[in-house]
Amino acid sequence: MTAPAESSGNASSPTRRVSIRDVAKAAGVSATVVSHVLNDFEGARVAEGTRDRVRRAATELNYSPNRLARSLRLKRTHTIAMISDEIATTPYATNIILGAQEAAYGQGWALVVVNTGHDREVQERALDLLEENQVDGVLYASMFHRVVEVPQRLADHPIVLLDARSDDTQMPAVVPDEVLGGRLAVEELIKHGHRRIGFAMNSEPIPATAGRMRGYRDALRAAGIRFDESLVVADKINAHGGYRAVTELLARDPRPTAIFCFNDQMAMGAYRALAEAGLHVPTDCSIIGFDNQEIIAEGLFPALSTVALPHYEMGAWAVNALIKQIEGVALDVTEFPVLLPCPVISRDSIAAPTTP
Amino acid sequence: MTAPAESSGNASSPTRRVSIRDVAKAAGVSATVVSHVLNDFEGARVAEGTRDRVRRAATELNYSPNRLARSLRLKRTHTIAMISDEIATTPYATNIILGAQEAAYGQGWALVVVNTGHDREVQERALDLLEENQVDGVLYASMFHRVVEVPQRLADHPIVLLDARSDDTQMPAVVPDEVLGGRLAVEELIKHGHRRIGFAMNSEPIPATAGRMRGYRDALRAAGIRFDESLVVADKINAHGGYRAVTELLARDPRPTAIFCFNDQMAMGAYRALAEAGLHVPTDCSIIGFDNQEIIAEGLFPALSTVALPHYEMGAWAVNALIKQIEGVALDVTEFPVLLPCPVISRDSIAAPTTP
Repeated sequence: MTAPAESSGNASSPTRRVSIRDVAKAAGVSATVVSHVLNDFEGARVAEGTRDRVRRAATELNYSPNRLARSLRLKRTHTIAMISDEIATTPYATNIILGAQEAAYGQGWALVVVNTGHDREVQERALDLLEENQVDGVLYASMFHRVVEVPQRLADHPIVLLDARSDDTQMPAVVPDEVLGGRLAVEELIKHGHRRIGFAMNSEPIPATAGRMRGYRDALRAAGIRFDESLVVADKINAHGGYRAVTELLARDPRPTAIFCFNDQMAMGAYRALAEAGLHVPTDCSIIGFDNQEIIAEGLFPALSTVALPHYEMGAWAVNALIKQIEGVALDVTEFPVLLPCPVISRDSIAAPTTP
Repeated sequence: MTAPAESSGNASSPTRRVSIRDVAKAAGVSATVVSHVLNDFEGARVAEGTRDRVRRAATELNYSPNRLARSLRLKRTHTIAMISDEIATTPYATNIILGAQEAAYGQGWALVVVNTGHDREVQERALDLLEENQVDGVLYASMFHRVVEVPQRLADHPIVLLDARSDDTQMPAVVPDEVLGGRLAVEELIKHGHRRIGFAMNSEPIPATAGRMRGYRDALRAAGIRFDESLVVADKINAHGGYRAVTELLARDPRPTAIFCFNDQMAMGAYRALAEAGLHVPTDCSIIGFDNQEIIAEGLFPALSTVALPHYEMGAWAVNALIKQIEGVALDVTEFPVLLPCPVISRDSIAAPTTP
């Protein structure tokens, strides 16, 4: 990470502009407090010592709050923009938009979605538009839980990261609790009596991979079940990857009586691998998925028990947090990302193990 | 339909405002021509007699072109809004957004998406915003091909209906060619030698139902195959509906050697029905779906041959048509909706019939 001091001598540096968050760090307060102090926000209760510290840090860093002041002007548009990579153009995480939309509309705010398709130029153009049209704040949203670098131009606008996190723990962000989700999935199998539990997992090193793996191990440990590396097979997270991984898991001796699949698409392939082996779900092998993609989970025979990603809830949380930021109301958390739970959705793919 | 004359005495009637399309109808020209005449659009080649007719119709109907003039002002935002019902919040038709987005970005235009969730109040609020923020035009998009009533407030803005049609054949609109799609699906089966072809169809009377049914019958007739009502079973368009419909079709004597499923979700249920009957795809029964929902079509074993909805192409077509309208360039079609083809996507679920 670049130290803020490196660029503090030239606030208009094209590569790195001093942001409100640099000031917040230097003063040891939150960005909201900085904004309140520098904008003389009425109603904000900030101790005089803190005010001094913020003003001193701003001066030392040569911080210019012009853009911030503009975004905090009294005349609001009551419009939020969601800038997303590809949420709106892929069928994976559309409930994020639904949750954000209903939370926004419910409070009399409008939501516009701009999808960048991971194109940096398009994103710049979207940011131009946002500044021209003066939306009050931005949800910076990712299609799946990942670490993002927030564009410098957004740093002084009210912003919440959605299904995304940054290295900056002061930047409001909300993501799924992958560890807890993985743990709940495996506990659901343990609860039905399973102790030999396979894991068809993701071969890509995204946060969900590490998180769900950790949850798998935590659940086993809590139940006194030894971790067996041979019961974990990683592959691509589609039906074919699931088919291959589960085919391999079924060759273990003794074979697992239940399998946790990294996602519902892998579970779809798991069903096929079991059918080819002449095994039935759930009587011969129980299956639990992840994501709750209803088109798959409800379309499989028997319907798939799975763990839901809190897409809707994350969208709603992010909008509520953003509106609070815009209105200068303190959030009730100070360290980010906030983790939202992934609940188990019970359908018909889990039963007690038959004697192996 | 309300005759325009009913409200012409009071242009500010809250229930029905005289629109540019009323003037176009009365003058027997297109809305684009009306806009060119009333705005003295430079470069528009309109005969003097036509100009007179348009001006007379506008006067007689007491039409006020203020809003139109505003939307045609020279200063443009180069921003298009897509107002959709639920495209952005369901996983069904996201490629519409992708196609629109790439066509817009490619020409230096921005696209913002506002999802109304079928809520009339939210839609009104979205229209407020659009007028405040001055987008140049609107794509009015539906998640699936249906007949829509265009909000009166949109009538004077450049607008294109996307995956939707209105009763007004002058209103630019683009939808899938459902009849041709159904015909191509069935011809694909006939081409492989099938003559006893079942149809697991939709029980809801949407345009796609009538269109694909017509395509099924057209393909049979062209191949000299008699239509057999007992080979058509309607049910819900999900996996369970497909399972039930295909289970029923398999009970016919002789049973069909191939089945056309209304959509890929029904095909997912068809696979299950066949597996339970001890029949294999495609050796015992060929299957073709519709929609090309890749998560299903590529996740099934064997992968599903299907017909693609031209979501991407419709999105692109609509943006191009809208930008032309905004820039006063005549469209090369005058009667709407424009029908885009639904191509067959060949995978592995179709083979020649075995002797029955």
